[in-house]
Amino acid sequence: MRLSRAFLPTLKETPAEAQIVSHRLMLRAGLIRQTSAGIYAWLPAGWRVLQRVSQIVREEQDRAGAQEILMPTIQSAELWERSGRYGAYGPEMLRLKDRHERDMLFGPTNEEMVTDIFRSYVSSYRDLPRNLYHIQWKFRDEVRPRFGVMRGREFLMKDAYSFDLDAEGARHSYRQMMYAYLRTFERMGLKALPMRADTGPIGGNLSHEFIILAETGESTVFYDSELEQIDWAGSAFDFDSREDMQACFDLATSRYAATDEMHDEAAWAAVPEARRREGKGIEVGHIFYFGQKYSKPLELRVAGPDGSQVIPEMGSYGIGVSRLVAAIIEASHDEAGIKWPDSVAPWKAAILNLRVGDAACDALCEQLHAALPDEAVHDDRNERAGAKFADADLMGFPWQAIVGPRGAAAGRVELKRRMTGERQEVSLEDAIARIRG
Amino acid sequence: MRLSRAFLPTLKETPAEAQIVSHRLMLRAGLIRQTSAGIYAWLPAGWRVLQRVSQIVREEQDRAGAQEILMPTIQSAELWERSGRYGAYGPEMLRLKDRHERDMLFGPTNEEMVTDIFRSYVSSYRDLPRNLYHIQWKFRDEVRPRFGVMRGREFLMKDAYSFDLDAEGARHSYRQMMYAYLRTFERMGLKALPMRADTGPIGGNLSHEFIILAETGESTVFYDSELEQIDWAGSAFDFDSREDMQACFDLATSRYAATDEMHDEAAWAAVPEARRREGKGIEVGHIFYFGQKYSKPLELRVAGPDGSQVIPEMGSYGIGVSRLVAAIIEASHDEAGIKWPDSVAPWKAAILNLRVGDAACDALCEQLHAALPDEAVHDDRNERAGAKFADADLMGFPWQAIVGPRGAAAGRVELKRRMTGERQEVSLEDAIARIRG
Repeated sequence: MRLSRAFLPTLKETPAEAQIVSHRLMLRAGLIRQTSAGIYAWLPAGWRVLQRVSQIVREEQDRAGAQEILMPTIQSAELWERSGRYGAYGPEMLRLKDRHERDMLFGPTNEEMVTDIFRSYVSSYRDLPRNLYHIQWKFRDEVRPRFGVMRGREFLMKDAYSFDLDAEGARHSYRQMMYAYLRTFERMGLKALPMRADTGPIGGNLSHEFIILAETGESTVFYDSELEQIDWAGSAFDFDSREDMQACFDLATSRYAATDEMHDEAAWAAVPEARRREGKGIEVGHIFYFGQKYSKPLELRVAGPDGSQVIPEMGSYGIGVSRLVAAIIEASHDEAGIKWPDSVAPWKAAILNLRVGDAACDALCEQLHAALPDEAVHDDRNERAGAKFADADLMGFPWQAIVGPRGAAAGRVELKRRMTGERQEVSLEDAIARIRG
Repeated sequence: MRLSRAFLPTLKETPAEAQIVSHRLMLRAGLIRQTSAGIYAWLPAGWRVLQRVSQIVREEQDRAGAQEILMPTIQSAELWERSGRYGAYGPEMLRLKDRHERDMLFGPTNEEMVTDIFRSYVSSYRDLPRNLYHIQWKFRDEVRPRFGVMRGREFLMKDAYSFDLDAEGARHSYRQMMYAYLRTFERMGLKALPMRADTGPIGGNLSHEFIILAETGESTVFYDSELEQIDWAGSAFDFDSREDMQACFDLATSRYAATDEMHDEAAWAAVPEARRREGKGIEVGHIFYFGQKYSKPLELRVAGPDGSQVIPEMGSYGIGVSRLVAAIIEASHDEAGIKWPDSVAPWKAAILNLRVGDAACDALCEQLHAALPDEAVHDDRNERAGAKFADADLMGFPWQAIVGPRGAAAGRVELKRRMTGERQEVSLEDAIARIRG
C-alpha cells in the first residue's frame, strides 16, 4: 500500500473528548472514527488490527476444539422470554419492533439462541461434548459510552458456548477455554491474569475474568507476581487430556489474584510480601460455568448412554475483541504513539522514503515494497522527513525501513525497531529478511 | 475435523417451508438455521462457505485498489435526514430508538455514513481518487422474507464507495468495479452477466446489475450468448489504465443483455437469432454512478489543483455476499445435493471411512487426514456406507476420498470428483496431491 494512495489519515491534534490514551491514539492514528455516541467505524489500519486480533482468537478457539458459527445480530424477544431474561435485562438491551410489530432486540449475548439452535439438531449423548463460538457485533446501550471502543455501544465479541453431559465434562470444557484464553492474550503481547469473578446476569457459580494490567483500568486488582511469569503460549498442555487441563487450571488459579470486589484480606496476607502486587486492570475476557440455567428452560435434552434423559451442562466464554485493540494500546505505547506487537500490527513495516524523486531512494523503496507487498506500507508522500517519522511512530508499525539519499546510493536501509527504538543499518536483503521475520 | 466430533448436522427430510432448491439444500446440508423470519444463523459448514465467498470478494476489491474499512450496523437517523432519504425510505428500513430516545436505524446501505467519514479527513484533490469498501451485515425488513438467505432480512453485503474529482474519473472507478465484479463471480464458478439497470433509491443515471442465470431466478433476462464466452478471470486488463478499463467495459457491455424491465425489442432483433438467449436470473451485484447526490447535501468538498472548490463525484457498488452462497447452489447442484466449486467449498474433501474399526481403513484415513488437516473432514462416524455417501453428496465436498477394507489393504483410495461423478482408484500420495490441487 502506497501512502500517497491510501486512506490512512492521522490527526495532529489530540481530540478533546478522548480521556484515555488508547482512545486518543486510536483517533490520532486513524484507526477509528466515531459515527454516533459510542459507535465507531473502523478505518483501514484499525480494521486490519481488528482482523488480526480476531484471527488469533479464532485460531486458539479452533485449537481448543471449538467450532465457529455465526449467529445473527437481531434476535426475537420470544426466546429471551423463555429464559426469563427479557424482563430481567435492563435498558442496556437495545429493543426494537419490526414492521409487523414483533418484539426484537439487538443481541448483547447469545445463550438462548445457541441453546435453541443446538437443541434443534442434537438428541444423543454421542453428539456431546460440543463447543460452538462466533465472532459477532453486539450492542449494549451504555448510558454514558466513553473511552472509545473500550466502552462502546456496538462492539465485537467472541462468545463460545459449551455443551456437556455432566458437571465434570463441563468443568473440563471450562478449563479448555481458560487455557485457550491465556494463550490468546499472550500471543497479542498481553499478560492477562485470570481472577475469580461474580457471574452477574449470565448466572452460574463458577466464573473467571481475565484482566490486563494498565494504569487506566477501571478495576483495582491484587495479585501474586509469580502469575506474570508463566509462559502460556510456550506451554504444551493437551486440550484433550483432562489431567492436563486440570493441571493448567491449577497453575493458573493457585496464585492469588482478585479484583477489589472479590479481594480477601486473609488470603492476601498469606502471599509473601515481596510478591504482592496491586494495580489497575482492564477486563478483556470472562468465562462462566452455569450448568443447566439455559438448557433447562429451553428444553435441551439428550438421551444418555443408558437411555435416560439428560439435561446438558453449559458454560459460556466471552472475549471483547474490539476492546482488546484498545487494551493492547494501553499496554504498549509511548509519548510518540502506538507500539504494535508484531502479531497484531496492521502492517509489519513502513518504508519511509526520505527523498521522493531521488532516483536511488525511489528505486530502493520500490524494491523493498515489491518484496513485501502485504507486509509493508510505502510512505511515498511528498512530505518532509519529520512528518514521516512522526506518522510512523504514531501508527506504531513494528519496523521502520528508512531510506535516505546517502544510504540508498550505497544500497543501505536504516531499520528501526519501534518497540525498542533500536536502529541498525542493513542491506536491502537483510531488511527484507528481518521484516519478514 | 472428525465428523464424530463435529457440529455438521444434516437433515433427511426436505423442510416444507423451502420453496427453492438452494434453500432446501442449505437447510438439509446444515449450512444455516432460521432463528426468526428471514434471519439465519450460519452453522460451521455454511460459515466456512460464507468466509470463502467473502475472501474472494475481498481479494478482488483489493486488487482493484479499493480499501477495506468496517462501518457499524447501527446508524443515526440524523445523517439520513441530511440526504433526504430518512423520510423517503419505506418500512423496509428497521428504525429504532436508543435509551435516550434518539432515532437510530439498522443500516440498509452506507452512502451517507461513508461520505461523512470521508469528509472528516479529506480536503485536497491529492486525497482523491479513493474507493472504500466494507463487508458488513445489513437489514432490510422485507414484508415477506422467503427463499432462505436469497431474500432474508439480515444479510451480508459488500458495499464499496468511490470518490473522484470529476465525472471521467468516476466513470473509470465504475469500470474498475465492473471488472472486479466479473472476476469475482467467475472465481466462484458463476457466469454473471452485467445488465443496464434502473437506479432505484440509490439514485444516479448509470447503473448495471449482475445477473446469474438460474431457473429459479425472479427476473427474466435476454442476452447475447457471446457474453457467456468471455474469460474474465483469465483476462489481464490493467486496473490502473483508463484505456484498459474502457476496453473492458466495452467488451462487457457491447453484447445485448437486459432484464425484462429494460428490454428493448428493436435492439434484441438486431442480435443474430442463433445467439439470442432468454432465461431467468438472480441479481448478485449492483453498481451505481450517482455523481454528487450525496457529496452535495453532506457537504463533501475538496480544494482542486487550481484552488477552486470541487464537489467529488461518487459511485457505490454492492455485492450480496450471503445471497451469493445460495446463488452458487442454484447454479451448481444435482438431485443428491450441492456441488461446490473448489474455490468456495467449506472443505475440499471428505474422507469416507467405510469400515470404522478396521485397522487398515482407520490407519489410511488417519494418514490422509493428517496430510490434509485443514482441507478435509474425516467421516469416522459409526454409520453405514450409504449414509456416508449420501451426506458427502448432500454437503457437496469437491472430492470424496473413499476408503474401504479391500482398497485400504492395498494402500489404495477411491477418489470421487463430485462435480463430474468421475471415480478413480489412486495411491495415498496421489489422493493427497490431487486434493491439494
